Amino acid sequence: MAAQSTNPLASNQLRIGILGASGYTGVELVRLLVRHPNASIALMTANSHAGEAYDAVFPHLGGNDLPELIKTEEAAWDGIDMAFCALPHGTTQEIVRELPGELKVVDLSADFRLEDVDTYAEWYGHEHYAPALQPEAVYGLTEFNRTRIADSRLIACPGCYPTAVLLQLLPLVAARQIDIDDIIIDAKSGVTGAGRAVKETSLFAEVAEGIHPYGVAHHRHAPEIEQEIGKLAGRSVTVNFTPHLMPMNRGELVTSYVRLANGATAGDLRQTLVERYADEPFVRIVPEGATPATRHVRGSNFVVTGVFADRIAGRAILVTVIDNLVKGSSGQAIQNMNLMFDIAETTGLEQQPLFP
Amino acid sequence: MAAQSTNPLASNQLRIGILGASGYTGVELVRLLVRHPNASIALMTANSHAGEAYDAVFPHLGGNDLPELIKTEEAAWDGIDMAFCALPHGTTQEIVRELPGELKVVDLSADFRLEDVDTYAEWYGHEHYAPALQPEAVYGLTEFNRTRIADSRLIACPGCYPTAVLLQLLPLVAARQIDIDDIIIDAKSGVTGAGRAVKETSLFAEVAEGIHPYGVAHHRHAPEIEQEIGKLAGRSVTVNFTPHLMPMNRGELVTSYVRLANGATAGDLRQTLVERYADEPFVRIVPEGATPATRHVRGSNFVVTGVFADRIAGRAILVTVIDNLVKGSSGQAIQNMNLMFDIAETTGLEQQPLFP
Amino acid sequence: MAAQSTNPLASNQLRIGILGASGYTGVELVRLLVRHPNASIALMTANSHAGEAYDAVFPHLGGNDLPELIKTEEAAWDGIDMAFCALPHGTTQEIVRELPGELKVVDLSADFRLEDVDTYAEWYGHEHYAPALQPEAVYGLTEFNRTRIADSRLIACPGCYPTAVLLQLLPLVAARQIDIDDIIIDAKSGVTGAGRAVKETSLFAEVAEGIHPYGVAHHRHAPEIEQEIGKLAGRSVTVNFTPHLMPMNRGELVTSYVRLANGATAGDLRQTLVERYADEPFVRIVPEGATPATRHVRGSNFVVTGVFADRIAGRAILVTVIDNLVKGSSGQAIQNMNLMFDIAETTGLEQQPLFP
Amino acid sequence: MAAQSTNPLASNQLRIGILGASGYTGVELVRLLVRHPNASIALMTANSHAGEAYDAVFPHLGGNDLPELIKTEEAAWDGIDMAFCALPHGTTQEIVRELPGELKVVDLSADFRLEDVDTYAEWYGHEHYAPALQPEAVYGLTEFNRTRIADSRLIACPGCYPTAVLLQLLPLVAARQIDIDDIIIDAKSGVTGAGRAVKETSLFAEVAEGIHPYGVAHHRHAPEIEQEIGKLAGRSVTVNFTPHLMPMNRGELVTSYVRLANGATAGDLRQTLVERYADEPFVRIVPEGATPATRHVRGSNFVVTGVFADRIAGRAILVTVIDNLVKGSSGQAIQNMNLMFDIAETTGLEQQPLFP
Repeated sequence: MAAQSTNPLASNQLRIGILGASGYTGVELVRLLVRHPNASIALMTANSHAGEAYDAVFPHLGGNDLPELIKTEEAAWDGIDMAFCALPHGTTQEIVRELPGELKVVDLSADFRLEDVDTYAEWYGHEHYAPALQPEAVYGLTEFNRTRIADSRLIACPGCYPTAVLLQLLPLVAARQIDIDDIIIDAKSGVTGAGRAVKETSLFAEVAEGIHPYGVAHHRHAPEIEQEIGKLAGRSVTVNFTPHLMPMNRGELVTSYVRLANGATAGDLRQTLVERYADEPFVRIVPEGATPATRHVRGSNFVVTGVFADRIAGRAILVTVIDNLVKGSSGQAIQNMNLMFDIAETTGLEQQPLFP
Repeated sequence: MAAQSTNPLASNQLRIGILGASGYTGVELVRLLVRHPNASIALMTANSHAGEAYDAVFPHLGGNDLPELIKTEEAAWDGIDMAFCALPHGTTQEIVRELPGELKVVDLSADFRLEDVDTYAEWYGHEHYAPALQPEAVYGLTEFNRTRIADSRLIACPGCYPTAVLLQLLPLVAARQIDIDDIIIDAKSGVTGAGRAVKETSLFAEVAEGIHPYGVAHHRHAPEIEQEIGKLAGRSVTVNFTPHLMPMNRGELVTSYVRLANGATAGDLRQTLVERYADEPFVRIVPEGATPATRHVRGSNFVVTGVFADRIAGRAILVTVIDNLVKGSSGQAIQNMNLMFDIAETTGLEQQPLFP
Repeated sequence: MAAQSTNPLASNQLRIGILGASGYTGVELVRLLVRHPNASIALMTANSHAGEAYDAVFPHLGGNDLPELIKTEEAAWDGIDMAFCALPHGTTQEIVRELPGELKVVDLSADFRLEDVDTYAEWYGHEHYAPALQPEAVYGLTEFNRTRIADSRLIACPGCYPTAVLLQLLPLVAARQIDIDDIIIDAKSGVTGAGRAVKETSLFAEVAEGIHPYGVAHHRHAPEIEQEIGKLAGRSVTVNFTPHLMPMNRGELVTSYVRLANGATAGDLRQTLVERYADEPFVRIVPEGATPATRHVRGSNFVVTGVFADRIAGRAILVTVIDNLVKGSSGQAIQNMNLMFDIAETTGLEQQPLFP
Repeated sequence: MAAQSTNPLASNQLRIGILGASGYTGVELVRLLVRHPNASIALMTANSHAGEAYDAVFPHLGGNDLPELIKTEEAAWDGIDMAFCALPHGTTQEIVRELPGELKVVDLSADFRLEDVDTYAEWYGHEHYAPALQPEAVYGLTEFNRTRIADSRLIACPGCYPTAVLLQLLPLVAARQIDIDDIIIDAKSGVTGAGRAVKETSLFAEVAEGIHPYGVAHHRHAPEIEQEIGKLAGRSVTVNFTPHLMPMNRGELVTSYVRLANGATAGDLRQTLVERYADEPFVRIVPEGATPATRHVRGSNFVVTGVFADRIAGRAILVTVIDNLVKGSSGQAIQNMNLMFDIAETTGLEQQPLFP
């Protein structure tokens, strides 16, 4: 299975570095990149596994001729075209600060998502470690920021929840069809959303056969959602965002409850979304009567949204599904990489969903 | 394991009939009743399994000396004190109509829950088959209808979702602390809520590793919720009720988003619930900062509710969990039976939750 | 996502028909074929869904411009190069008998796997309906039958269990390193192995949070295993084959317990397998100390085997994993199609495993 | 829910201490003991949670009026009748050594299971820390050691796997109906068997949707099984024991493959088991044709075994299921406590299995 070596473009492939290759978003980057015809993984770090072969950590990716894991400080950036940072929140700012200035960086953490460093400090509990870099960072919601992403050196990929929520709501905010002061977002996520950190709340027996909300009224994805809606609306906004932890590996479902504005109907909302995303390769709006399910996107970069009239007059319900590890993180990161290097945007992301 | 035979009250035990003993609510009634010190199962029907030993259908309940399954029409009601109906919706009205008039009946189906037979016909797609009986039926939400339940002959046990929703909201409606025109109920249920009917949507591979909403804006538990809130409020009400199907066997979590009224705070809501349920053996309100999870009630008759302030000013979030097969159906049915026969209400229902 | 239309080979692509496209092996064929650069799906049947759009049945495959589902008898075979039969066992013989004689057929059912029609009748409970065709059928265990598969018109793809078992054991039988009269095969499978048929034993609540053996000492994959081992050994063989049903969608793990022969050690067994499969793109033997897991192959065509010395002297343990829907059925079927049409064997099957 | 306080025997109840009350076997002891009519929990330790209310750690057991968690060294043993040790392996020997000499102890760890301290050192990697106590320890397989358990001060409860295996095999060894040199035990366990320790291999995403063997040919339950079979057989024995980790919380299924001896048939084996366990309240042998499943015992102290003829002449297959947290640990521990204090053996253990 030596896909890369037989690739006709191999000679002018992108050379990629992955920082934090032993987490779930890291390994998902690897899964997708080993099949990407224009990219080669040239460097991978994982401090806790430095010195190990990659398939000693992730046997399912054996046979791909990948570089050995090294420590971040051992990384030689010479000849590397770009880096993905798949490090835990709070550790990326300092590391990115020390990277070569010309290296393009797509960051999957939260470290550069909030434009206002004070808001960052408020929600993340410490001062921003790289405030000078923050203004450079472009929010990597691909479908809304293509031009800026293509021209930028530092991309802050959105959180998994904000990706689903913003793709669902931003066109409706732009069309002034919903009341932005009355947005209720009930979200449900698989366990990989919490990463591969070893903690009691992620143990099988603490998650299987059950559900519970978490971070009620203080989840860190709220300010990110509010930032983007607020920028589009031209004023600050507060939303309800209530995530729940579910017994499944992958997948995220967002059910949003909105109040209609300016005479819009649920049908108008659907129409707005259909038109906005007509040419988007990864975004689908299901017809009236169809219902999105996370299993419709498992393992793929697709985003699927349905719109429903509420029985309460003047309200509507929106349901969006993504795979949190693909469109919610590593897939969107590669989509952004493609843009930055003028590669066709869907390259390496054409996997069909895996069902069952 | 002959619990009954050694019971000192055995001689004057209730003799129980179960109609529909081969479904999930039926077998849950059996699980609970074989350990109930004041009740004996004397008769069990299951038309599709007539003639079979009960433990041929449910081997896990072997060793309990249970009667053989028979057809409904073969049931001899002589000497039977009461019947549980655990039949599919739409089949119970006709069967109950034909039962002996003096037999007490606790019905777990939806057939007698809606007081207005026209509303029933609208939501269930056919005329009510026993309109003469409907006025006798008492809505079996135990904590709110004790006197009427104790005196009634026919109890219509609430649906699983309405049980959780109404225990959560009714005290707040009574206290006029929430706006009843702005109630959004996002519910999540395990698969047993769909019963043991053999259908594609209940197959393992269609449910595992995924989540999706269903019955959006037309689930039949909505009118039941609206009936009870409306009766208390003195006018008709429309709520948003959006259930989701989850990959777990048991458990139901209801996240409700409410607008505060008359100056109430989230703390006031919690206080109202704490006071209302102070003496209730099965209802718990968790302190500020604690979060209910379905695994806190698995296999038990408990109901646990948490109250959270919303980041949107003037709103609050309520989270309630039950086991849909216990407090959501068979447990509450037995709680009602206890009331009807003047047995201590918690008898047979003291099981602790099973975790993990 | 119109992968096919932009493919440079589109003009001389294989035109494929799929009989039984609404089952799990059918939809897995579709998942893999829509990304196959040399094949187009031109015809799909599903009698129970005739007249429906494919993405009405399987929304996750929307956007692929697939033909509408039709009835088998409506299929027009003109211009179709080959057919996959993904029909239930027992229905394929008659259908294949009526197909155009020049149409190449890859059958995923059990209908043509047993060479001896009397053995077929004994295990499947009815006479073979197409005995005249049986001699034409080639057993599609790709790694062992390449020449015959390439030249054949009718391929009988192995069952999922036999695929894993035979890839694990045949080289050891050939090397006379194990005692073929003392082979114990303990197998564990995900639920999709039972297909999408709607039956009580496949309901979520009957499978989740549990495990049980099934078909003990009479599972129909036993004679298939015995046929192939027996042919290689030159005499009839009886094996122990005990499958278990597990709460997971995909994946199959086979643990075989063998008695060593002719002085072989566990290390010798590993060496035999390593050498036999050195050039096989889909078969991996893990080094001593590593342990195969079904998650190492999920969604992929890989087969992974580990060999362990037993603490009982003179015995060894072999562990093999496959994805039952890929290498265990639809993936191997496409691998055989590639062979039959002189396409590079790994084409369309390079997906990396999906983990988590 | 003050079950204890209303109990007529409350005044002369056993006063119980639990060492290690924050693990899964600890919390299972609590679940069972709070409903035990003759026992009160008077003391609970959990070093990592000292100072916390028990329902802060396990909210599902709220309302039971339990003592606060303390450190082991803070425990005051005055007035305590007996202690359960539910501590990790390797920590119990030193702690038990320091307990008051007259305190009865039921240990759930592996620390006192192996009679030979050298064998202990070999398998557990360190010298035994309390060799002087080891001779006092009685192996707590209730159905086989009643007299000695009743008279002992220190019970070493069997491991979960040995419990299932020995209950299945010991009567057959005693009857000389199986060849003890050819015993192959393929076991499958839910995740709680690994305890609540926070480690990567127990994370939800590392376990869900998959299966793998572990500890192949070196799992520590093997010497325990061999010790007991060997003692009964009068000579040393080596068995194959191969456990697998499954995506479920509770439950253990053991499939054993045995060679028949002295002309015995599978039917003879069943008959031996039926007779041996005829009066045992927790042990069931299913009739020919029935198949045990872990869901038949979930949450209960039952053990269910089936016997099957193998297709290989002269061999048989035995399948046994238990709940690893009940009969496999905490339930059997309480069964032993009942024996030690002359309480009816089934007291507190009559829970029916929870299905689904």
